[in-house]
Amino acid sequence: MNKDEMQMYLDKAGVLIEALPYIQKFNRKVIVIKYGGSAMVDDKLKESVIQDVTLLKLVGFKPVIVHGGGNEISSWLGKVGMEAKFKNGLRVTDEPTMEVAEMVLNKVNKSLVTMVQGLGIKAIGISGKDGGLLQVDKKYAGGEDIGFVGEVKKVNASVITDLLEKDFLPIVCPIGMDDNFNTYNINADDAAQAIAQEMKAEKLAFLTDIEGVYKDYDDKSSLIPVLTPSEARKLIEEGSIQGGMLPKVNNCINAVEAGVSRVHIVDGRVPHCLLLEMFTKQGIGTMFVKEKTDEER
Amino acid sequence: MNKDEMQMYLDKAGVLIEALPYIQKFNRKVIVIKYGGSAMVDDKLKESVIQDVTLLKLVGFKPVIVHGGGNEISSWLGKVGMEAKFKNGLRVTDEPTMEVAEMVLNKVNKSLVTMVQGLGIKAIGISGKDGGLLQVDKKYAGGEDIGFVGEVKKVNASVITDLLEKDFLPIVCPIGMDDNFNTYNINADDAAQAIAQEMKAEKLAFLTDIEGVYKDYDDKSSLIPVLTPSEARKLIEEGSIQGGMLPKVNNCINAVEAGVSRVHIVDGRVPHCLLLEMFTKQGIGTMFVKEKTDEER
Amino acid sequence: MNKDEMQMYLDKAGVLIEALPYIQKFNRKVIVIKYGGSAMVDDKLKESVIQDVTLLKLVGFKPVIVHGGGNEISSWLGKVGMEAKFKNGLRVTDEPTMEVAEMVLNKVNKSLVTMVQGLGIKAIGISGKDGGLLQVDKKYAGGEDIGFVGEVKKVNASVITDLLEKDFLPIVCPIGMDDNFNTYNINADDAAQAIAQEMKAEKLAFLTDIEGVYKDYDDKSSLIPVLTPSEARKLIEEGSIQGGMLPKVNNCINAVEAGVSRVHIVDGRVPHCLLLEMFTKQGIGTMFVKEKTDEER
Amino acid sequence: MNKDEMQMYLDKAGVLIEALPYIQKFNRKVIVIKYGGSAMVDDKLKESVIQDVTLLKLVGFKPVIVHGGGNEISSWLGKVGMEAKFKNGLRVTDEPTMEVAEMVLNKVNKSLVTMVQGLGIKAIGISGKDGGLLQVDKKYAGGEDIGFVGEVKKVNASVITDLLEKDFLPIVCPIGMDDNFNTYNINADDAAQAIAQEMKAEKLAFLTDIEGVYKDYDDKSSLIPVLTPSEARKLIEEGSIQGGMLPKVNNCINAVEAGVSRVHIVDGRVPHCLLLEMFTKQGIGTMFVKEKTDEER
Amino acid sequence: MNKDEMQMYLDKAGVLIEALPYIQKFNRKVIVIKYGGSAMVDDKLKESVIQDVTLLKLVGFKPVIVHGGGNEISSWLGKVGMEAKFKNGLRVTDEPTMEVAEMVLNKVNKSLVTMVQGLGIKAIGISGKDGGLLQVDKKYAGGEDIGFVGEVKKVNASVITDLLEKDFLPIVCPIGMDDNFNTYNINADDAAQAIAQEMKAEKLAFLTDIEGVYKDYDDKSSLIPVLTPSEARKLIEEGSIQGGMLPKVNNCINAVEAGVSRVHIVDGRVPHCLLLEMFTKQGIGTMFVKEKTDEER
Amino acid sequence: MNKDEMQMYLDKAGVLIEALPYIQKFNRKVIVIKYGGSAMVDDKLKESVIQDVTLLKLVGFKPVIVHGGGNEISSWLGKVGMEAKFKNGLRVTDEPTMEVAEMVLNKVNKSLVTMVQGLGIKAIGISGKDGGLLQVDKKYAGGEDIGFVGEVKKVNASVITDLLEKDFLPIVCPIGMDDNFNTYNINADDAAQAIAQEMKAEKLAFLTDIEGVYKDYDDKSSLIPVLTPSEARKLIEEGSIQGGMLPKVNNCINAVEAGVSRVHIVDGRVPHCLLLEMFTKQGIGTMFVKEKTDEER
Repeated sequence: MNKDEMQMYLDKAGVLIEALPYIQKFNRKVIVIKYGGSAMVDDKLKESVIQDVTLLKLVGFKPVIVHGGGNEISSWLGKVGMEAKFKNGLRVTDEPTMEVAEMVLNKVNKSLVTMVQGLGIKAIGISGKDGGLLQVDKKYAGGEDIGFVGEVKKVNASVITDLLEKDFLPIVCPIGMDDNFNTYNINADDAAQAIAQEMKAEKLAFLTDIEGVYKDYDDKSSLIPVLTPSEARKLIEEGSIQGGMLPKVNNCINAVEAGVSRVHIVDGRVPHCLLLEMFTKQGIGTMFVKEKTDEER
Repeated sequence: MNKDEMQMYLDKAGVLIEALPYIQKFNRKVIVIKYGGSAMVDDKLKESVIQDVTLLKLVGFKPVIVHGGGNEISSWLGKVGMEAKFKNGLRVTDEPTMEVAEMVLNKVNKSLVTMVQGLGIKAIGISGKDGGLLQVDKKYAGGEDIGFVGEVKKVNASVITDLLEKDFLPIVCPIGMDDNFNTYNINADDAAQAIAQEMKAEKLAFLTDIEGVYKDYDDKSSLIPVLTPSEARKLIEEGSIQGGMLPKVNNCINAVEAGVSRVHIVDGRVPHCLLLEMFTKQGIGTMFVKEKTDEER
Repeated sequence: MNKDEMQMYLDKAGVLIEALPYIQKFNRKVIVIKYGGSAMVDDKLKESVIQDVTLLKLVGFKPVIVHGGGNEISSWLGKVGMEAKFKNGLRVTDEPTMEVAEMVLNKVNKSLVTMVQGLGIKAIGISGKDGGLLQVDKKYAGGEDIGFVGEVKKVNASVITDLLEKDFLPIVCPIGMDDNFNTYNINADDAAQAIAQEMKAEKLAFLTDIEGVYKDYDDKSSLIPVLTPSEARKLIEEGSIQGGMLPKVNNCINAVEAGVSRVHIVDGRVPHCLLLEMFTKQGIGTMFVKEKTDEER
Repeated sequence: MNKDEMQMYLDKAGVLIEALPYIQKFNRKVIVIKYGGSAMVDDKLKESVIQDVTLLKLVGFKPVIVHGGGNEISSWLGKVGMEAKFKNGLRVTDEPTMEVAEMVLNKVNKSLVTMVQGLGIKAIGISGKDGGLLQVDKKYAGGEDIGFVGEVKKVNASVITDLLEKDFLPIVCPIGMDDNFNTYNINADDAAQAIAQEMKAEKLAFLTDIEGVYKDYDDKSSLIPVLTPSEARKLIEEGSIQGGMLPKVNNCINAVEAGVSRVHIVDGRVPHCLLLEMFTKQGIGTMFVKEKTDEER
Repeated sequence: MNKDEMQMYLDKAGVLIEALPYIQKFNRKVIVIKYGGSAMVDDKLKESVIQDVTLLKLVGFKPVIVHGGGNEISSWLGKVGMEAKFKNGLRVTDEPTMEVAEMVLNKVNKSLVTMVQGLGIKAIGISGKDGGLLQVDKKYAGGEDIGFVGEVKKVNASVITDLLEKDFLPIVCPIGMDDNFNTYNINADDAAQAIAQEMKAEKLAFLTDIEGVYKDYDDKSSLIPVLTPSEARKLIEEGSIQGGMLPKVNNCINAVEAGVSRVHIVDGRVPHCLLLEMFTKQGIGTMFVKEKTDEER
Repeated sequence: MNKDEMQMYLDKAGVLIEALPYIQKFNRKVIVIKYGGSAMVDDKLKESVIQDVTLLKLVGFKPVIVHGGGNEISSWLGKVGMEAKFKNGLRVTDEPTMEVAEMVLNKVNKSLVTMVQGLGIKAIGISGKDGGLLQVDKKYAGGEDIGFVGEVKKVNASVITDLLEKDFLPIVCPIGMDDNFNTYNINADDAAQAIAQEMKAEKLAFLTDIEGVYKDYDDKSSLIPVLTPSEARKLIEEGSIQGGMLPKVNNCINAVEAGVSRVHIVDGRVPHCLLLEMFTKQGIGTMFVKEKTDEER
């Protein structure tokens, strides 16, 4: 073996060895991944996310995917001649809209199942209706009734536990039922957070279209690798976190405070972002924890 | 208690007691139900079928529902401005058609889940993609390629066994994948038969829009309660069975010969047809068995 | 199918469907049945009780039978030339009497096993001696020693749990042992109550020779379908409940207050009284509950 | 410690150490013990047998007791004014006789349960009716119908396996049912043999009132410690084995040939005969084996 | 059988029966045996100890052996030209000494495994390193650093539980690791006590070269059969217990107070001392208990 | 993120993704690793091997280490003034030599346990004595008795299965016992091969001090990546494989023919050689398989 070959080999081995402590730490732990944004649109990224999740499963984690489907819903509403309406960022969802939304989300759901199965891993696609996984109350937009938009009231986590015990990789689309068994649309971030909380997941990762949380939003070099809830709240007060980031950061804060050990905002535009965040020392996004370790300070 | 009340009570008790030997016989046995036809259109009938299946589950059977969705597919194709085309009774299924078909079937699937959950029973809706349940080859219509229409090549029954072990009532829509993980539409009767065969189900019941098999199709009083494959083949030869009945009866013959103990053609237009066929002595449709018992001769 | 046939079918189905919520509610729940009185004498009634219990088992309940044998004991005492003596309604039980009583109770016990086995259900007949199920202290009749009459001090419920886990239907005769392993006769109502309490049974049913509790004993139309302990105590104070009913009602009150959810007094003279009480909306006897639901008020 | 004490201690230890290989060899093995004869009459012997069986259970064996009750049956028949009749050594058993016999056998059964429970071991007393353990055909005495006397047709061994798995010591009285669920008396030796065969027991021990098999019946020093079926058959031909010994020896031969590894005839008149036969090198009775080891030749 | 033979048999049976309550009492209980002293040097005694432990395992106990190896270590140090040094009775243990000590202890360990395997019992020899069983802190001799001498800080009892569940007889040599994974020597008495405490063992037995604790050390007839911690403390204050006995008695006191039910000092010079202490009424050494029963007072 | 960082990240992810199919393929499979040679001497290499094995365990494999200790044995023989003698490459092993060899091998064994434990993985060090894992016959060197040198006669694989089920990483030193429980030294390659065969291991890897098998030993570029037994035999015949390689290659041939799927000769002098061989496409040594796949041809 020549020197260059040897170096290449050593580099390869180094990457695997670097992953060792993370694999060890999160072995047999539940990891909920909110899958959305660019990573659901670009085919290459899609493939890389699915590979990542598959690898996480293979090395002993218990990943659960929760996905959205926003763009496709609007596009299909168009196809059937309906108009997409929003109020306060929430989709106004009358019954026909809900019907289309459910069809589209299930289609997306099964396409993810197809991809995971294609990599030789046993996947199952469910919605929050199956086994009564997600029970909701109606959500109002500034006090106004906007139809079948739900907020999660109760997560029947045993549905997912059952599937994990049978070695399935569960893929969940964010649809739920109210007490009268009506169908509701749920924000995918909220659904992911609720499931992670109820399962006391070890990790919850939001795939987004940003790099993470910045100290100064205009300075891209000010990415914050680790944040506590109190630090995050301070950044909100100071106005560093605003706009679309606000609800996402609030989801992170809530999840951490409700018992999820680590919540990650990960840039879904980077190929294999999940592996890089979970298996390398520096990570690539922002991680929320209840308290920082000495090393993270 | 007066005499009339007493008689009413005795009648009630009699019905329950009549069911006893059937409950005993099929306890913990798998029963595959092909759900389709009028019973999927009429709301009252729909409710009665779901009640029946729920009761079967409660008294210890292991029902598995396989459903179609034919009419709704055509109706949604219309909504998005596509045309439904058929060749030899099979739907010509190009990629856009398949996409709509999958969306509609999953919608129907989840609506059944909703109904079963509403009765307090743990249901899960899956397609043949989940866990790789249904693997298909392309099916040709008289030698002609009609797109993504599949015939079942392999049933991965452990998917359903896993779910039954976790006490779910599995509801399956007839979509499968080929070796390259393309999506295919499958005839629901065929899917139900394939699943029943692979699981060596105790029973397979087809809900149809006829009373059963007649000795003389024009004489509605000539319904045949029990048939063996050889008897059925004779009826086919004699021309008593023809038209739409032919493939259905062939499915029955095949299933019985492949190891399903009892295959039923049940009239889905009769409320609670499943209970009546399974829990009463005379039954209400036609049952196929390998060999008749003395009583059935 | 003609109209009349159809109606008959619908009626049959209706009865089964009416049972659905009850089957669902009590699935896998322990139900202790005190079997005695006329229902043990009349052969037809005997058969109907055994059919009922068998059906309860088949649809997923876990019935446990506790039976007496009063009349037969006296009759056999006569055959061997001994005299039956009573004090305060309790049988004076010297050693020879106890010996005969044990023989007779075991005979009755095995005859019930025979009947259940005859219906294809796995039964096992035990006494309170087996596995040390029933430990007793001596019971005095108004302060007077009347021999080997015991009151239950401790129930070793694991004996029954073991047998239920092995899918046996346990049939128990009310004989126990004191700390010195002497044999004692126990009142069957007391034994049933003690077992139901210790197992936190979902239901305890007393088969008796009355319709239930009346508001006014002389007005047979004043049967009370649901009673709470406090209501029952008030009826006792008012003198509506007296005589032989008194201890039985006290057993019901005690069992409910000790954690048995529902305690029933059922008329054993009505064929299939257990099914009718458990699987129909109105029931046929009096049920004791800690608190009434809105519907029961 | 003085020398005498030391010797006493060494002797004690020696006995325990001598038992070691036997405890090891038969650990977790099923041992069926036919209990009858003097050992059931004398209170001291009774106690010693129960202690032995209890010890066998404690050191890891799985003993099953099968007992008779011959003398007591005749005595109770007398008490109720009935006459005991025999034909060819078999009890003529009409229905009233069967009724008394069943009562007496169950009484004996429960008295053994009492004794075992008194030593702190979990016992359960069953008859061949429970769980359908013993199914019989009618047995004829020289072609003549002598009533409810049965020979074992089928042993449903899972009943005993279930109880052993729940750590019960099963005590069985030899009563069975025919296909019509009629009650039959069975010879206890036959019942023990049938159960041991069906369970492929490691050992079957008959407690009898003789020392074992003699080469020369009149020479009490000619006891044979180990016999093979062919040797036993030769002794029968030569007339050394005759009378009441004949059926017992035939039971032994049959059991060995049907797969029971060791069948013992043990002298029930010797206190702790079972321990001595099973835990000492020389044993005290006659053991039947398929083939002798070198040591046993 | 003649009278003498009969008596011999009765004596044998008597010994076995005497053991019965002890076998019953300690069935499936963990018993930690500190093995050392003369019983490890004399080949006959060695064999008798191993037989005893083997028998304890066979009759259902769960023995765990912890052994020392003191003399052999010094002898091997000599062979490799090193000198054994002691301070306050503790071995001064530099790294080369530790290396030899570990080799010798593992050799002794495997020789015990060999002996147990030779009796047909599944043994496994481990040190406190395996599975991280024994974690230690450095122990100082009167404040002075004497090298790799450890005191137990944490016992990872699941290692032993795992092995017991797989039916191994664990044999442990007293070597542990500190937080930096350095190797340490541990006093075998201390290791046995720590393991017994952590496992809440039913019994802990120290094999020693004395008969037990004397009221008056010079009066060999003053052996005390049962002691409570407070009685033992009083004897220490009075000076009755001193010298090498002192730490041993303190180990006993600590173990009892930490939850071990019975701690025994047994004379390892008596053959089969373990059996005699555990299976005979009077025992042969001194037993420490938290509180005496009436019988022991 | 700048371009270089991005590229570094992509490279890292690429390595992990390359490992994915191998992790998937060998998930929950047993992998026996013969650990010896330079990789046991150099501290850096030692650490890298232990890291590799630990990672294999973490990602779901079931590694079993079998190690030698050759050099250290000779060195310790020297320390105690004994001379190392060899005949035909086998160590002449009299009893004192065996004693030292066992001590040294156990010391090596526990030092490996220490290292694995230091990485947070549960290890257990055993020899072939524990649980009777390795039973041997005496091995003769050219017909000559050279003492306690054994060849494996029987592997009691349940010992290792037990430990794997309890999630231990078993580390085995090659010592066995003959039928008389004498201690024998075994060649570590032979022991590893025997264990892999008996367990039908998925993989057996020999860590050696060569790169693998060469087509032409003098041409280091002629390394052969994949070999079948017949190809290997041809190379032996042609004289390409000779000297110390010969027995090793024979071990490989035998193992493959006895059912081990893949046998690897890996260069232990390359850091992380195990990871590189198992998780990269090209591998780094020579792999023996029964038949080559198309890709490997």
